[in-house]
Amino acid sequence: MKQFMDADFLLTTPTACTLYHEYAANMPIVDYHCHVSPREIYEDKHFENITQVWLSGDHYKWRIMRSNGVEERYITGDAADREKFQKFAEALPRAIGNPMYHWCHLELKNYFGYAGVLNGETAQQVWDLTAAVLRRPDMGVRGLIARSKVAFIGTTDDPVDSLEWHKKLADDPTMNTAVAPSFRPDKALNVEKDGWCAYIASLEVESGVAIDSVSALKAALSARMEHFAAHGCRASDHGLDRMIYRPADDDVVEAIFRKAMAGEAVSDEDAEKFKTALLIFCAGEYVRLGWVMQLHYNCLRNPNSAMFRKLGPDTGFDCIGPHNGSAALAGLLDALYRENKLPRTILYSLDASDNAFLDTLIGSFQGGEIAGKLQHGSAWWFNDNKQGMREQMISLANLSLLGNFVGMLTDSRSFLSYARHEYFRRILCELIGSWVENGEYPADMTAVGTLVQDICCYNAKRYFDLEG
Amino acid sequence: MKQFMDADFLLTTPTACTLYHEYAANMPIVDYHCHVSPREIYEDKHFENITQVWLSGDHYKWRIMRSNGVEERYITGDAADREKFQKFAEALPRAIGNPMYHWCHLELKNYFGYAGVLNGETAQQVWDLTAAVLRRPDMGVRGLIARSKVAFIGTTDDPVDSLEWHKKLADDPTMNTAVAPSFRPDKALNVEKDGWCAYIASLEVESGVAIDSVSALKAALSARMEHFAAHGCRASDHGLDRMIYRPADDDVVEAIFRKAMAGEAVSDEDAEKFKTALLIFCAGEYVRLGWVMQLHYNCLRNPNSAMFRKLGPDTGFDCIGPHNGSAALAGLLDALYRENKLPRTILYSLDASDNAFLDTLIGSFQGGEIAGKLQHGSAWWFNDNKQGMREQMISLANLSLLGNFVGMLTDSRSFLSYARHEYFRRILCELIGSWVENGEYPADMTAVGTLVQDICCYNAKRYFDLEG
Amino acid sequence: MKQFMDADFLLTTPTACTLYHEYAANMPIVDYHCHVSPREIYEDKHFENITQVWLSGDHYKWRIMRSNGVEERYITGDAADREKFQKFAEALPRAIGNPMYHWCHLELKNYFGYAGVLNGETAQQVWDLTAAVLRRPDMGVRGLIARSKVAFIGTTDDPVDSLEWHKKLADDPTMNTAVAPSFRPDKALNVEKDGWCAYIASLEVESGVAIDSVSALKAALSARMEHFAAHGCRASDHGLDRMIYRPADDDVVEAIFRKAMAGEAVSDEDAEKFKTALLIFCAGEYVRLGWVMQLHYNCLRNPNSAMFRKLGPDTGFDCIGPHNGSAALAGLLDALYRENKLPRTILYSLDASDNAFLDTLIGSFQGGEIAGKLQHGSAWWFNDNKQGMREQMISLANLSLLGNFVGMLTDSRSFLSYARHEYFRRILCELIGSWVENGEYPADMTAVGTLVQDICCYNAKRYFDLEG
Repeated sequence: MKQFMDADFLLTTPTACTLYHEYAANMPIVDYHCHVSPREIYEDKHFENITQVWLSGDHYKWRIMRSNGVEERYITGDAADREKFQKFAEALPRAIGNPMYHWCHLELKNYFGYAGVLNGETAQQVWDLTAAVLRRPDMGVRGLIARSKVAFIGTTDDPVDSLEWHKKLADDPTMNTAVAPSFRPDKALNVEKDGWCAYIASLEVESGVAIDSVSALKAALSARMEHFAAHGCRASDHGLDRMIYRPADDDVVEAIFRKAMAGEAVSDEDAEKFKTALLIFCAGEYVRLGWVMQLHYNCLRNPNSAMFRKLGPDTGFDCIGPHNGSAALAGLLDALYRENKLPRTILYSLDASDNAFLDTLIGSFQGGEIAGKLQHGSAWWFNDNKQGMREQMISLANLSLLGNFVGMLTDSRSFLSYARHEYFRRILCELIGSWVENGEYPADMTAVGTLVQDICCYNAKRYFDLEG
Repeated sequence: MKQFMDADFLLTTPTACTLYHEYAANMPIVDYHCHVSPREIYEDKHFENITQVWLSGDHYKWRIMRSNGVEERYITGDAADREKFQKFAEALPRAIGNPMYHWCHLELKNYFGYAGVLNGETAQQVWDLTAAVLRRPDMGVRGLIARSKVAFIGTTDDPVDSLEWHKKLADDPTMNTAVAPSFRPDKALNVEKDGWCAYIASLEVESGVAIDSVSALKAALSARMEHFAAHGCRASDHGLDRMIYRPADDDVVEAIFRKAMAGEAVSDEDAEKFKTALLIFCAGEYVRLGWVMQLHYNCLRNPNSAMFRKLGPDTGFDCIGPHNGSAALAGLLDALYRENKLPRTILYSLDASDNAFLDTLIGSFQGGEIAGKLQHGSAWWFNDNKQGMREQMISLANLSLLGNFVGMLTDSRSFLSYARHEYFRRILCELIGSWVENGEYPADMTAVGTLVQDICCYNAKRYFDLEG
Repeated sequence: MKQFMDADFLLTTPTACTLYHEYAANMPIVDYHCHVSPREIYEDKHFENITQVWLSGDHYKWRIMRSNGVEERYITGDAADREKFQKFAEALPRAIGNPMYHWCHLELKNYFGYAGVLNGETAQQVWDLTAAVLRRPDMGVRGLIARSKVAFIGTTDDPVDSLEWHKKLADDPTMNTAVAPSFRPDKALNVEKDGWCAYIASLEVESGVAIDSVSALKAALSARMEHFAAHGCRASDHGLDRMIYRPADDDVVEAIFRKAMAGEAVSDEDAEKFKTALLIFCAGEYVRLGWVMQLHYNCLRNPNSAMFRKLGPDTGFDCIGPHNGSAALAGLLDALYRENKLPRTILYSLDASDNAFLDTLIGSFQGGEIAGKLQHGSAWWFNDNKQGMREQMISLANLSLLGNFVGMLTDSRSFLSYARHEYFRRILCELIGSWVENGEYPADMTAVGTLVQDICCYNAKRYFDLEG
C-alpha cells in the first residue's frame, strides 16, 4: 500500500516516478488562463486565516459544503471564519475520490507543511497551524507565486479594464513572473443581456470611440485590443455557454445593434447573429495580433434562479450544459478558415462527451503555421479531476498528437491553486509512464522526458509566443 | 490467477477485501426500490424449478436468449420448463463480461450452494440440484428475504392499489422485514395514453373523490397518498421516458384535462403541460409528507412494435432512449426549489452519458435540510453492471460527495436479486480500496469502513427516514 | 517493464498471452469490410518505396502530419517521396498513445522485419530498408495478403461497377483468398447531391433498365444486386452521415424522384423520404439474397470547405458528427422488422457515445434466425484504437453477448493494414484474459479459447455465410 499522498502520489511505476521527479516537477508553470487579481499580486496581499484563503471565494468548496447539508450561513453567510472552516473540514472526508480532497491536502502540504489529514477532529490544529504560517512575510501572494515557480500568469480581463495593475507589475523590477492580461469581451457580445447598453457606454469612454454602429463597436474593441497588446496580452477568451454560429448580412447585424441600443429586447436568434458577426471580427483581429483565441462552451449558468437572485453569479450553482454544438462549431471554424481569420484556437467544452468530437474536429483545421494550431483545452472546471484529465489526454492522444498539447491551466481565483499543475503533471507522467512500462512507447527517457516537458511547459511557451 | 468467483470475487487488494468482508458484507439490505410482489411475500411463495425462479418473468434473461438466436417459444412460449432452461444455459457462456453471468453464478452459489459453472453440459445437473433445494421449506420468498438480511423492501405500487398485502405483512408478527409501498402515479399523469380515462375512473372509486377537474384529480391523488402514508410509504417514483418541463397556466391545464376526459386525443405538447402541472403538485405533496421523489427517464420503451403487439410491455424489448433532457430537468428543479416544493429527490437517467450532467446539476440544488438531499441514483437497469456502477460512482465522487450516496437498489422482480447488492458492495469496496491502496485516501480503516457502511446501508436509512 | 512492442505486446497476463498466441494469432483473417482495390490484387501491384505504401492515400497519416504543423506540399503536394516520409517520421514520435504509432511499428516489424523505432533520425535507415524489402517479389499485394493469412476480403463497390476484377480473381486458380464485392448504393440514394442524375444515367446503362420511376430504379438496383450476388457478394453497406427514417407514401416518393430527375433541388426532408423508401426496399432485397446490411452513420464529412474545394473528399478532413439518431434508427429497424425486411444488420456509429444505445437497441430486434443477428460493429474509424475497441467490446459484453460478436475489419485502403487485426486480437485477448485472471469467467481454456476464435474468425464466417 502506498502512503497517503506521499512523494510518489499518483505515480505507480518506476517510469512514472522518473518522469515526474526528473522531468516534470521542476518545470516552470505557465498558467495561461486564470482569474486571479493582478491587484492582489501587485499589493502582495496577505491572508488572515485559512478560511479567507480557501473559503472566501471558492465556489468549488461551497458546493462541497452544500452537498453535505451545510446551511448557507456557514458558506456565504455571516458565520465566523472558524465556524465556516469547521463545517468545511467536517464535509471534506465525505469527498472521497473528489479532486478537492487532493487539492486541499496538496495545498496544506506544499504551502503549510501539514502532511496530516483534514477532518472535523483536526480542524482546530490545522486552523492554528495555517494561521501561524500565514503570518510569515513570504506567505503573501508574491511569495506563493515565487515558490510555485510560476513563469507566466495570464489573467482574464474585461476590455474596459485600464490594466493599471498589469502596468504597475510590468514596471516593478522586483516582480519576476510575467503577468499579462487576456481579452475577454463577453459583455460586449452579450447583446441580449441586461446591462449591455450601459456596458457599451463604458466601452465608449475607455476606447474614446463613439459607438453608434457595429463598425464603431468593432473599432472600439480594436482600440482596446491595442491597449491590451501594449500590456503583453497573448490571448483572448470567450465564454459562450452554448456554441453559436448564425451568419447574417451586415445590415441585419446593424439593425440588431440599433434595436439593442434603443433598449429593445433582442431575440435569441438575433443575439446569435450579432455574436457570430462580432466573434468573426474578433477572431480576425486575433490573427492580426498573433493572439490565441480560447472558446469555452456548454455551461448551464445559474439554473437555480432563487439562489441566483440571492447570491448572484459565480457562487457555485452552475452545471454542465449538454448541447450539441457540433454543427455550430464546425461552421464557425470553417468560416474563419475560409476567410483567413482562424487564429491559434483552444476549444473547451464543459461537456466531456464532446471530447472525441473536438479531437477529430481540430484535425480538420490543422495546418502549416504551428504544430497543434488548433487545441483541445485541458479538462475544464468540473472535468478537472483525475478521470477527466486522463480521458481528455487519452482522447487527444488517440485522435490527435498528445505531444503537441499545451497542457494545464488553473482557471482559478486562488494563489494556492498552482498545486493543480502538480496534480496534472503527476497524472500526465503516470499515463505516459504506463505506456512506456507496457511497451507501448520506447523507453527512451530523453525522448519521453522531452514530451513530458513540452506538455508541462514548452508547448505553451511556444504556443503563446512567450519567448518573443 | 484468482479462482472463479471465490470469496474475494472482484476484490484485488487487501484493503478491498477488508472493507468488503469486515464492513460491507454483513450490512442489512435496504432495498428501497424494487418491483417484487407483496402478495408473494405474504404468501411465502415457493417455486417448483429454476425456470420458474429465473425465466418466468426476467426480461434480462430473455434478451440473453434472443441475442443467442433462441426462438421465442423457448423464451415466452410453450416449451417445457426444462427445455427453456437448457436454452438459457447454452446461451450463458456467450455472455462473457455480462453482469448476468455473475448474477446467475452468485445466485447459484448463495441460494443453491452450487459453486460450479452453468452451461449446456451442466444444465441437467443444475436443474436437478436446484429442484431439490427449492423443495426445502426455507426456500420460499420469506426464507430468501431472511437469509439475504433484508431490512427494508420498498415495492412499487399504483395509487389505486388497496395495499392489502402490505397491511397483512405489517400485521404479521412473524415478518421481520419492513415492506413499504412506493407511490407511482404514472397512469394518472399519462393523459395522452389509451386507458387514461378508465384509469381515472378507477382512481375515483378508490379515492372516493369525484374527479371532474384538475383540482379534484389532485385531491384524489392526495387522498391516495394519505392511504400510502398510512401504510408506511417513504417514497414515490415517476417513470417519464423523457424528462419534461413545460409550465402552463391552470386554465390551460384544466382545458387539457377536460379534453382528455372527453376522450379526445391529447397532443404531445399538451401532455407535457399536464404532466408538468401534476408533477409539480405531487412534488409539493411529497415535501409535505416527507417522501423521497424518484425520477426515472431516458428510456425508449417498446421500439419493436410487432413484438409489443405480441407480448405486451416489459418483455425485454426496451432500450436506452438518449434525449437531451438537461434544460427540462434544470427547469423543473428550479421551479420546485423556488416554490419550496423540492423534496429529497433521486434522479436516474437510463443514458449514462447524463452522469456528469446529473452530478453537477444536483450540486446546484443542495442545501441545509439533509446531507445529499439531491441524489444521482445508482446505475439503473442496463447500466447496472461493473463498468456502469464504477462510472456512476466515480462521476459522483468527482463532482459531488460519494460519502453521502444512498447506494444500491435491486429494481428487480425476483427474490434472488439481492445478490446484486453483494455485487455492488464488492465493486464499491474494490473502488474505495483501490484509492486507499494508491495513497489517494488515508488508510484509516475506521473512517473508510464508516463510509462504506454508510453507502451500503446507513445513508439510505437516514435518507428514507427508516429509523423514525 | 515490457520491451517495446515485443511478442507479448498489449498482453499483460499469462492467460492473455496464451489466448493470443495459442488461439488467436493463427486464425485466418476475415476482412469483411474494406476499401482495397480488387484490380491491385489481381495485378499484384508492387510499391516503389514506403511513401507510396504509407502516404499515397492514407488520410489518417495526413492528419498526423497536419497536426504537427507540416505544410500541405509535404502531404498531398509535390514534395519528393523521401521528403514526405521525413516529415511523417518526424511527426510520429509526437503521436504517443495514438494507434498510428502502433500500426506503423507493427507494419514495419511484420512486413519489413524492422524492430526499431521510427523517428526523424531513423527515417533514412527505414527508407533504405523498406525500399530494399519492397523490391522482393513476395512484397506485392498478393504476397502481403498471403502472408497475412487472409481468408476473405469484402471490398466496397458501387452498383455500377462491372466487377471485372472480382471475376478475374475468381477465375484465377493461383488466388487462394476469396475476394467478394459489397454493394454500396449511396450514390443512388443521395438524391439531393450534385451528380445524382448523371449517376442514375450510368445505372441505367449498367442495369439495362430504363429508370423512369421509383419502381424502375428499384428494378435497376435489383438487377445490379443479382450481378453482385453472382460474383459472391455477401454484404451491402450504406454510408448515411446521419441516421434517417422518414416514411412517406409511394406517390410522395415518386414525386421527389421526378423532381430530382428534372434537375430541381431536393429539400433535406424530401431527401430523407426518398432515402428511407429506398433503404427499406434495399433491406428487403438483402433479406431475399441472404446478405448482411451494414449501416455507417454520425460522420461529419468535409467540414473544412476550403480544403474540400482544394483536395476533394476522403483527404483527412472529416470528423465525428454527433447527432441523436436514436429515434430514426429505432423507427427504421421497427419498420423493417414489422415488414419482414430486416436482414442481418451491423450498425456502426462514428460517435462512440452511441455505444450503449446501440447495444441495447439491437437487443430489441434479436431473434431466432441466427445468434447475434443484429450486431454493433467494431469500433469504427476514429474509434479504432485501444480505448475505443475496449469500450465497444465492454459495452457489447455488458449489454449483449460478446461471444457472438463478428469482430474486426480493417475498413482500410492499404494491404499492410491487416496488422490491425493483430492489434484487435491482442486487445481482445488482453480483455478476456483479464476477466479470467480476475475470476470473472472460468479458467476453462478450451471454452475461452473457443470464444476468442469465434470472435476472431468463426462468427464472421457464419454470419457472412462464407462456408456455403
